[in-house]
Amino acid sequence: MEKNLDARLKEEYVSSEEIFKGKIIGVQVDTVRLPDGKTARREVVKHPGAVVILPLTDNKEVVLVRQYRHATGEILLELPAGKRDGGEEPLACARRELEEETGYQAQEMRVLTAFYTSPGFCDELIYLVMAKGLLKGEACPDDGEFIDVVTLPLDEAVRMVLDGEIKDAKTGLGILACRGLEEQC
Amino acid sequence: MEKNLDARLKEEYVSSEEIFKGKIIGVQVDTVRLPDGKTARREVVKHPGAVVILPLTDNKEVVLVRQYRHATGEILLELPAGKRDGGEEPLACARRELEEETGYQAQEMRVLTAFYTSPGFCDELIYLVMAKGLLKGEACPDDGEFIDVVTLPLDEAVRMVLDGEIKDAKTGLGILACRGLEEQC
Repeated sequence: MEKNLDARLKEEYVSSEEIFKGKIIGVQVDTVRLPDGKTARREVVKHPGAVVILPLTDNKEVVLVRQYRHATGEILLELPAGKRDGGEEPLACARRELEEETGYQAQEMRVLTAFYTSPGFCDELIYLVMAKGLLKGEACPDDGEFIDVVTLPLDEAVRMVLDGEIKDAKTGLGILACRGLEEQC
Repeated sequence: MEKNLDARLKEEYVSSEEIFKGKIIGVQVDTVRLPDGKTARREVVKHPGAVVILPLTDNKEVVLVRQYRHATGEILLELPAGKRDGGEEPLACARRELEEETGYQAQEMRVLTAFYTSPGFCDELIYLVMAKGLLKGEACPDDGEFIDVVTLPLDEAVRMVLDGEIKDAKTGLGILACRGLEEQC
């Protein structure tokens, strides 16, 4: 699939207007040329990218965090995650976030895959990192982060994704991908 | 889990400053009071919500769309999806988007679950809708939408999610959830 040659679908960049530059996100409105030659405006949220960690214990339990999400107005159950500071390498970011949020250190970590959370308007790319060989230490969340650590059997977590009790997309995808990859082994 | 009583985690709304009101998204910076009494600023992207459709043929094939995503600079393979116009009911939105993007009409549609795409900074909630009993008609994309329709066996789509060839989170979650629910039946 030669993405750069796919002129029937591709849009060409024309210009960009910066709207907002915040601590986490930036916002811009770009003008693009469509495949039919017309122009269109695209609202874009710029994000530095993130990692989500799937910490799996030797007993096939998943370590999750409960935290309040102001944007959604709910306490959500999620896999540990965090944004990449200044282009930080995904595994280094995963190691830091896992320890900060849960206190766990992992003896084995590897990137399973990466995905876009909302490609229609946002460039956020999240790396999914598997963490095994977990050693429990002391959590030390960032200033302003209030987090509960919750450990669940993988089977129970899979059920909660399918039943809609786990409502965070990166967490659902991480847990179901873990189950799928375990079955392949 | 009494979410409203969970004072150890919950943040209280203090005030809000509107930054941007676009066609698809809005942006605001809110001030919240943290559980320890301090205040913090939260950058929030407001989104009307969306649906993602899992169209499954009688032969266990999934109908997907290829489309260029300006925000990510790539052509992505995704399940058909679209935003809810003015609080549109999820099934009505799914019916409209499925037909516009792929030409298919579904005799059977039901909401499987709903999830947040980026709860750290965005309120976008996506309903996952299963569509079966597919009848092929003529696609009629919105003005400015350029889309290829692609049909793949469910097993192949699952493999592409696990291998990272399918990079869109809602698509990955929809396909893996479909596989998980099929196994439960």
